[in-house]
Amino acid sequence: MKTDIDALMKENKIDVLFITGAASNNPFMYYFTGNVHVGAGEIIKKLGEEPILFYNPMEREEAAKSGMKTKNRAEFKFADILKSVDGDAQKATAGLYEKMLGTAGVTGGRMGIYGKVEIGRIYEVLGHLNKNMPELEIVGEGGVSVLSEAMVTKDETEVDRIRQMGKVTEEVVGKTAKFLQSHKAKDGVLVKDDGTPLKIKDVKAKINYWVMEAGVTNPHDCIFALGRDAGIPHSVGTLDDNLVLGKTIVFDIFLQEAGAGYHYDFTRTWCLGFAPEAEQKMYDDVRTVFDDVMGGLEANASLVDLQTYTCELFEAQGHPTIRQDATSQEGYVHSLGHGLGLNIHELPFSRGSNNSLQPGVVATIEPGLYYPDKDMGCRIEDSIYVHPDGQIEILADYPYDLVLPIEEL
Amino acid sequence: MKTDIDALMKENKIDVLFITGAASNNPFMYYFTGNVHVGAGEIIKKLGEEPILFYNPMEREEAAKSGMKTKNRAEFKFADILKSVDGDAQKATAGLYEKMLGTAGVTGGRMGIYGKVEIGRIYEVLGHLNKNMPELEIVGEGGVSVLSEAMVTKDETEVDRIRQMGKVTEEVVGKTAKFLQSHKAKDGVLVKDDGTPLKIKDVKAKINYWVMEAGVTNPHDCIFALGRDAGIPHSVGTLDDNLVLGKTIVFDIFLQEAGAGYHYDFTRTWCLGFAPEAEQKMYDDVRTVFDDVMGGLEANASLVDLQTYTCELFEAQGHPTIRQDATSQEGYVHSLGHGLGLNIHELPFSRGSNNSLQPGVVATIEPGLYYPDKDMGCRIEDSIYVHPDGQIEILADYPYDLVLPIEEL
Repeated sequence: MKTDIDALMKENKIDVLFITGAASNNPFMYYFTGNVHVGAGEIIKKLGEEPILFYNPMEREEAAKSGMKTKNRAEFKFADILKSVDGDAQKATAGLYEKMLGTAGVTGGRMGIYGKVEIGRIYEVLGHLNKNMPELEIVGEGGVSVLSEAMVTKDETEVDRIRQMGKVTEEVVGKTAKFLQSHKAKDGVLVKDDGTPLKIKDVKAKINYWVMEAGVTNPHDCIFALGRDAGIPHSVGTLDDNLVLGKTIVFDIFLQEAGAGYHYDFTRTWCLGFAPEAEQKMYDDVRTVFDDVMGGLEANASLVDLQTYTCELFEAQGHPTIRQDATSQEGYVHSLGHGLGLNIHELPFSRGSNNSLQPGVVATIEPGLYYPDKDMGCRIEDSIYVHPDGQIEILADYPYDLVLPIEEL
Repeated sequence: MKTDIDALMKENKIDVLFITGAASNNPFMYYFTGNVHVGAGEIIKKLGEEPILFYNPMEREEAAKSGMKTKNRAEFKFADILKSVDGDAQKATAGLYEKMLGTAGVTGGRMGIYGKVEIGRIYEVLGHLNKNMPELEIVGEGGVSVLSEAMVTKDETEVDRIRQMGKVTEEVVGKTAKFLQSHKAKDGVLVKDDGTPLKIKDVKAKINYWVMEAGVTNPHDCIFALGRDAGIPHSVGTLDDNLVLGKTIVFDIFLQEAGAGYHYDFTRTWCLGFAPEAEQKMYDDVRTVFDDVMGGLEANASLVDLQTYTCELFEAQGHPTIRQDATSQEGYVHSLGHGLGLNIHELPFSRGSNNSLQPGVVATIEPGLYYPDKDMGCRIEDSIYVHPDGQIEILADYPYDLVLPIEEL
């Protein structure tokens, strides 16, 4: 949680945090600013002190909406700095950062850097800053950092926002099932009133409409993958595909609050009309593993151990798994779950350290099986929250049924 | 244009381009891959050779959709590399990059780096790569780079896509005007059928609906700023504001193709019902400057010179300008225009080099005046294309009228 930041800075021997970029699509910046229209800014947070947002004067009112302590970047007279370094924009930016750090009382120490920005633009700036401030050690903390560790646990406000996204997800998924079932089948495919086949693009257009209507966003599209596509974990589906009966459809939807806020992550697998034996067997196997893992979840469990356990279960069923062959494209080929929040994928992961389902964590549990050459795949995914008292809550409630009954025309 | 890349590499003494990150919201990656669902990949392009896309095996089909030469990252056995560096993920990533570069035939030379990624994650990776490959010079090209220079000029396909976004913009703006005018005024504000005031959030919800209906996106929201907000260039407007008659509304809309593709950029200023004298005078001044600048546009004109000229025009009218005081928040306080494409703001700019409206450029022209303390602001913006023969085309056609007549209840 945000309240852990100072303790984490101490633990990681980080004296100052430096975050750059826009507020939008830049989770570490948004973590401090919230949903404001800041296109370019910097945050400097010294250990034990309040963070300061340095803003572009054109964005002063938006910066003020963050509720943060703010400072106008124009005060540092970039044009003068630029002149003093013969127009070298990267040197001048380093000079600007040096002045901003000075204002924040930073003259040295270990500085963790953050921000989703163009690397070509920042790489040499940091090199110059390094030369300008020899007492300052610039630290790229990599995948596990003060802020990514702070984000591992969510406070009640954050969980409420994620839960609300779960509610919208339930509604959208329910509407999608109803929409599919409002169509009848002819010659093995769903058809519209005019007798022409319903396409995946028609379904996706509806989904996007309901998402918009709910005032949330679908920035990464969703996976609505049928048959062979369902057998490829990250295939988003083929827009011109017909809705064929008796084929698995993996429907993975990851909505996000408007303004690049908190996510929800959710997957169901459906067969329209009926499930052939192979599809039913695959689903039953995934469902058994899903129920087993979910039933045994406990606070502070390790996602790495759970991944191993999941592999064991699938292997006992006779499926190949990723732990036997990292390049396998059949069987269970991905990891069990991941944290989610401002990032759709964040700590904890089913690999590396920081993999525990500690109280405060919001994470997905999503076992699946993939057989592209048999034109099928299946994944079941819920997002869970580990309460402070260790209780596990599934943040959105939706039936797991494989078959969506369809009327014949 | 993309066809200029090799020539620009030679000119900039760059032997290899290295691009990392997702395809979405990462313009330099998208420039090569197009709209594919690649969440993490690298592109290596050696001078004179075809670029190679290195993909995550889970995304192999999406990577294939790019039409590029591809290579599976799993071939380089990241887990083994990780083991060899005692689990240091950043060193291991540097090791992976070294192998990928080897595969592409790169052992040294100057390498330009690109990609919108978390800097904390890449900064030390590049440091390790530097140590591993002493013959390789990593170059952060900053604001002006081989790829940003290539993007300055658009080919016909790109211009068609931008023009299409302009057409959608025209339609959405027309619908917005009609929607506002379908309401009547009571006590100086627009009201709904039930007599309650129409709010800016109602207008924005409609705009987002029409945008979605057109199959495009509005990822950065839009500016619909009234009164004092209109006087602050980057205020997006206040959702709970009523639609007050006789106040300027700055409506700046910057739509983008679905999947983080090409943009359009467009602004009109409206007064509902009537324009008071001060608002009308401000609009007339902006319109005069806009018409003067647009009327005189010629291929290869410098945006820097045009910015100076625009300042002169506004100063002659008695307005303060940004060239007199860089921190001014009244009068003409921003630059005249900017290129647009995969980025909403890209080269050419009204500052620095690469500022020419050379054939192939798509850019905005957007003079404005801002008086927050007088509760008013005004901007007029069109996007133009400079044809290969030098002809200037306004890419979307929409009336410039200030006043939208409104019926009284």
